Amino acid sequence: TLDVPALHMTRPLVPGVYVPTMCFFEEVSEEVDTAAIARHAVRLARAGVTGLATQGSNGEAVHLTHAERQLVTLTTRKALNDAGYAHMPIIVGCGSQSTRETIQYCCEAWDAGGDYALVLPPSYYSSLFAPSNETVMEFFKTVASASPIPIIIYNFPGAVGGLDLSSDVIVQLSAHPNIVGVKLTCGNTGKLNRVAAATRKLSKTRDPNHPEFLVLAGSADFSIQSLVAGGHGILAGLANIAPKACIKTIELYKQGKYVEAQNMQEIVSEGDWTAIQGGVVGVKAGLQGWMGYGGYCRSPLPKPTGEQAKKWKEGFRNLVMLEKSL
Amino acid sequence: TLDVPALHMTRPLVPGVYVPTMCFFEEVSEEVDTAAIARHAVRLARAGVTGLATQGSNGEAVHLTHAERQLVTLTTRKALNDAGYAHMPIIVGCGSQSTRETIQYCCEAWDAGGDYALVLPPSYYSSLFAPSNETVMEFFKTVASASPIPIIIYNFPGAVGGLDLSSDVIVQLSAHPNIVGVKLTCGNTGKLNRVAAATRKLSKTRDPNHPEFLVLAGSADFSIQSLVAGGHGILAGLANIAPKACIKTIELYKQGKYVEAQNMQEIVSEGDWTAIQGGVVGVKAGLQGWMGYGGYCRSPLPKPTGEQAKKWKEGFRNLVMLEKSL
Amino acid sequence: TLDVPALHMTRPLVPGVYVPTMCFFEEVSEEVDTAAIARHAVRLARAGVTGLATQGSNGEAVHLTHAERQLVTLTTRKALNDAGYAHMPIIVGCGSQSTRETIQYCCEAWDAGGDYALVLPPSYYSSLFAPSNETVMEFFKTVASASPIPIIIYNFPGAVGGLDLSSDVIVQLSAHPNIVGVKLTCGNTGKLNRVAAATRKLSKTRDPNHPEFLVLAGSADFSIQSLVAGGHGILAGLANIAPKACIKTIELYKQGKYVEAQNMQEIVSEGDWTAIQGGVVGVKAGLQGWMGYGGYCRSPLPKPTGEQAKKWKEGFRNLVMLEKSL
Amino acid sequence: TLDVPALHMTRPLVPGVYVPTMCFFEEVSEEVDTAAIARHAVRLARAGVTGLATQGSNGEAVHLTHAERQLVTLTTRKALNDAGYAHMPIIVGCGSQSTRETIQYCCEAWDAGGDYALVLPPSYYSSLFAPSNETVMEFFKTVASASPIPIIIYNFPGAVGGLDLSSDVIVQLSAHPNIVGVKLTCGNTGKLNRVAAATRKLSKTRDPNHPEFLVLAGSADFSIQSLVAGGHGILAGLANIAPKACIKTIELYKQGKYVEAQNMQEIVSEGDWTAIQGGVVGVKAGLQGWMGYGGYCRSPLPKPTGEQAKKWKEGFRNLVMLEKSL
Repeated sequence: TLDVPALHMTRPLVPGVYVPTMCFFEEVSEEVDTAAIARHAVRLARAGVTGLATQGSNGEAVHLTHAERQLVTLTTRKALNDAGYAHMPIIVGCGSQSTRETIQYCCEAWDAGGDYALVLPPSYYSSLFAPSNETVMEFFKTVASASPIPIIIYNFPGAVGGLDLSSDVIVQLSAHPNIVGVKLTCGNTGKLNRVAAATRKLSKTRDPNHPEFLVLAGSADFSIQSLVAGGHGILAGLANIAPKACIKTIELYKQGKYVEAQNMQEIVSEGDWTAIQGGVVGVKAGLQGWMGYGGYCRSPLPKPTGEQAKKWKEGFRNLVMLEKSL
Repeated sequence: TLDVPALHMTRPLVPGVYVPTMCFFEEVSEEVDTAAIARHAVRLARAGVTGLATQGSNGEAVHLTHAERQLVTLTTRKALNDAGYAHMPIIVGCGSQSTRETIQYCCEAWDAGGDYALVLPPSYYSSLFAPSNETVMEFFKTVASASPIPIIIYNFPGAVGGLDLSSDVIVQLSAHPNIVGVKLTCGNTGKLNRVAAATRKLSKTRDPNHPEFLVLAGSADFSIQSLVAGGHGILAGLANIAPKACIKTIELYKQGKYVEAQNMQEIVSEGDWTAIQGGVVGVKAGLQGWMGYGGYCRSPLPKPTGEQAKKWKEGFRNLVMLEKSL
Repeated sequence: TLDVPALHMTRPLVPGVYVPTMCFFEEVSEEVDTAAIARHAVRLARAGVTGLATQGSNGEAVHLTHAERQLVTLTTRKALNDAGYAHMPIIVGCGSQSTRETIQYCCEAWDAGGDYALVLPPSYYSSLFAPSNETVMEFFKTVASASPIPIIIYNFPGAVGGLDLSSDVIVQLSAHPNIVGVKLTCGNTGKLNRVAAATRKLSKTRDPNHPEFLVLAGSADFSIQSLVAGGHGILAGLANIAPKACIKTIELYKQGKYVEAQNMQEIVSEGDWTAIQGGVVGVKAGLQGWMGYGGYCRSPLPKPTGEQAKKWKEGFRNLVMLEKSL
Repeated sequence: TLDVPALHMTRPLVPGVYVPTMCFFEEVSEEVDTAAIARHAVRLARAGVTGLATQGSNGEAVHLTHAERQLVTLTTRKALNDAGYAHMPIIVGCGSQSTRETIQYCCEAWDAGGDYALVLPPSYYSSLFAPSNETVMEFFKTVASASPIPIIIYNFPGAVGGLDLSSDVIVQLSAHPNIVGVKLTCGNTGKLNRVAAATRKLSKTRDPNHPEFLVLAGSADFSIQSLVAGGHGILAGLANIAPKACIKTIELYKQGKYVEAQNMQEIVSEGDWTAIQGGVVGVKAGLQGWMGYGGYCRSPLPKPTGEQAKKWKEGFRNLVMLEKSL
């Protein structure tokens, strides 16, 4: 365990590369593998990422109990602190179907050393929301008002039965003092552009290094596309495989080295195609194949066959070669 | 609490009307209202239903913690036993994303006095199932082998991102000794017909009053349609409003009084249209309007406006008039 | 060509089995094969079906030009008349995206000897319908008012991007004097029950042999399920393979021979599973395998491999054995 | 009519802004309004667009007969030629359900003076494609081999029941000598990046002003996002309202004036939100409100109420102010 001060420092949410970390399990028992989680967190921190996110889709949040979620976040926090990254923020996935459980997750995230809560809209009963946008906004505002940590809206229609938050809804929610950003996994960079522009114009301060409302792309294959649209970075599963390549792509762009950034983005996007197709199963196969750790997902997610594992590994080859050169 | 013997009697799964009971909450605190839950269970038992199901969609399972689920099931069990319905079975919704949590729910259901587990397939990562049917079948077989209580497959594509189990998959799963039935909420009575025929032919015994594999319709608006197709009854939310009408429709049919059954089915189907449109929100409004209890769903589900509540109430008028006459 | 009198007799729309006929093509040229179309129509008529429907999904309407559609309908009409079935009605698929082309199809259907028009709602721009139900109802009413032949509403969400007409919409449309029936391919027998009940109650006459508004099931695997719900018959692709079995199932039910009807329904539902999975490709493979004609669909629909063709053929075996015994 | 030489010049497909032109109709008769079509085409040409596209979604292709489609394309060709834009290419929407009708549309497009065919994959029977990608690729290759004009692949899942072509499929199809580009309306700029990178690497020549395979964004709200990802321009409905703003945004970016490009992109994206929500109905209301022409769509598309029309007009205000200043 950690001292309270070490748990709860002020860790600002700044532009950069955030990694939704994988959750690792022991092979037969499927128990949480805290050693692997700690090692992975430190590897990513050393690569220079801006922050980590536990309990996203890549972290198999839906496969974890409340207690396990806290264990994972606390393990990550402690590993970072022990390795000298006490200032690195942790975002914690906290979405749930009920308002009250979502708030509970936010509180538990805070207790475990989390700094920000990434919140999906509820969707199980979305056909009963009336009117739909009002219910969704009421949900986010109630959660944000009750949460001990700030909220990042998570727009990922594929995970919530197609429910897709519009730029209008996100911009309205950005007015809440405890809603501080959005992750757009929809891939809609037109929406991202509208959200980035509107929230920037509504800001009191206009420091591009410390935006009041952080707009993150949800996949690495549209990193520079989101930057040119006014986005501030990425929160992307591919960075589990190749954090340095993700970071370098963004740095090159920000330094005005557009051709180099574009060249690197192409390699990143090619690698991301494997991550998109393989999901957590494929990314773990890639980690196992190239870095020697990763293992398998919890059941019922299938273990890849030898042939599948080889295919996922090969899909990351060019990207891993780049990563190793950085 | 109950004695273990009172908790765990043998309660066979026989044809009839099963009710996925609503879960009730106190208005401001949104705490579980055990008094209302107990009263409602007894009202349904006295109306003559065959069994109850806690933690279905109507029971707001996704809004409940593990502990609350056990509280609801145990409250229901105790209320039934206290009122003289110790032999009435309780089905408990146990679906979850991970195999291990699904098994945990099954164990907890058993601990709380549940007799059968109603299990949805996992869907969050369904695009990674490979091949899809294999992963789903492996999931059900693993759960069934580990569960202390028998499994009823729950096919409800609308709740799991469109994942729709085919008759082939269901028939194959029926071979597992601990998988004893299916609830088809898809409304596909052709599939129901194939499942009922194939599982009947695979049975060792052919007693229509004690089928080895129970096939239930998931909505009251296709009660007699499922009976004529070889189904054994319903597990339908509308029976929260009008249990006697649901029972009588099926009884009339089984007695060969087809015209009377059809006439009653028409009133049931008309009432069900309101339940389908209003979902848990509308059914609670109906209970509140006609029976004086029901209250509201947990947030984020909206409380109906006065006008909406009136509309839901009116939608059930004909059905409630019928119910009161029975 | 036919005399006008022979084209345009009064052919009432009565309960029974209607067949959405396949359209046949020559193998290399993919030209319309009028000889096969004529032979198939007469085979079905001799089997005792109530009517035929050209240019449904089974008739590959979307693969045919206006002129070809008229050729197919006229060929069917002429074949029926020549074989002594001048009184048998033909329903013609007339759905299109614009109101004006839908009306044009209705007029062309009439010109070619069609008696009724089966009309899908438009869907390409359905997100712009405002409000959705109003636009859809206005469409149907405008078409019905302009059409020289009566309209049958076609509810098939799978063919129109998920647009699903509610019982409320269908019942309201039934009030139009030139809208005379509905085909429900959605498989929702609760909706079918509501539509059948409401339209029967709104009828001036109540002759069950001549309902004012005909309610047809869109698949053979819910034939008796729809009858018990108040439906009047089927318009189902499987009848291309096994018209007698489809007819006999319904006759047995109407004669009160419920057990025999149920037994036959089970064989029909089993066979229909192959038709549902294989669609027009599988049904043609079944015709070719068992009856020696059928051929292939127009490109881009694939020709089945030898193995696939064998699988489709086998899927119909039990049903074809039954058919041959009748 | 035009001389054959004037119809069929060589008009290269180069990077830039292409406009899927609206189709205009007379108000009561809903007949094609050739005068408005001609005037609109010339307005866009004078604004400096690179090319026009008839019979896209904005051109209400699904509401037009074969003859009307030719009339619209020929009217557009003639208007451009008469106004001195004989060298401006016209892309013609040619997608259809059958291979043969798609080829027919390509031939008719050529006859009417069209230079390129924009082709959606067929989707009505897509569940029968086996395997799916093979059938789709076979379709495109057969069409491309038979078409007198080159093919541009149109990826717009929303118009074809969710069928979404992957980067792998598009890159493979790019190898066909008569498939020369793709329009990505899916908004997936990661896919766009992969397609642009792979097709550039497969090119024999690498002249960025004359790419062998043209990659176009399907909406204006991701113009510079697609450029930074290697795309070559847009084919976007918003350019019907504000062609100069769309062009200037891209020019500024290509000139390296990134801040100015980003500022203008924000106004374009804001305006596009109205075009996305309002579709053809809203864009016509915008044209009518700001430019005094546009009228209404063909039935069943609704005519906006006065209030709706005002809302659509207002949504374009900032964009139109920008447009008028250019």
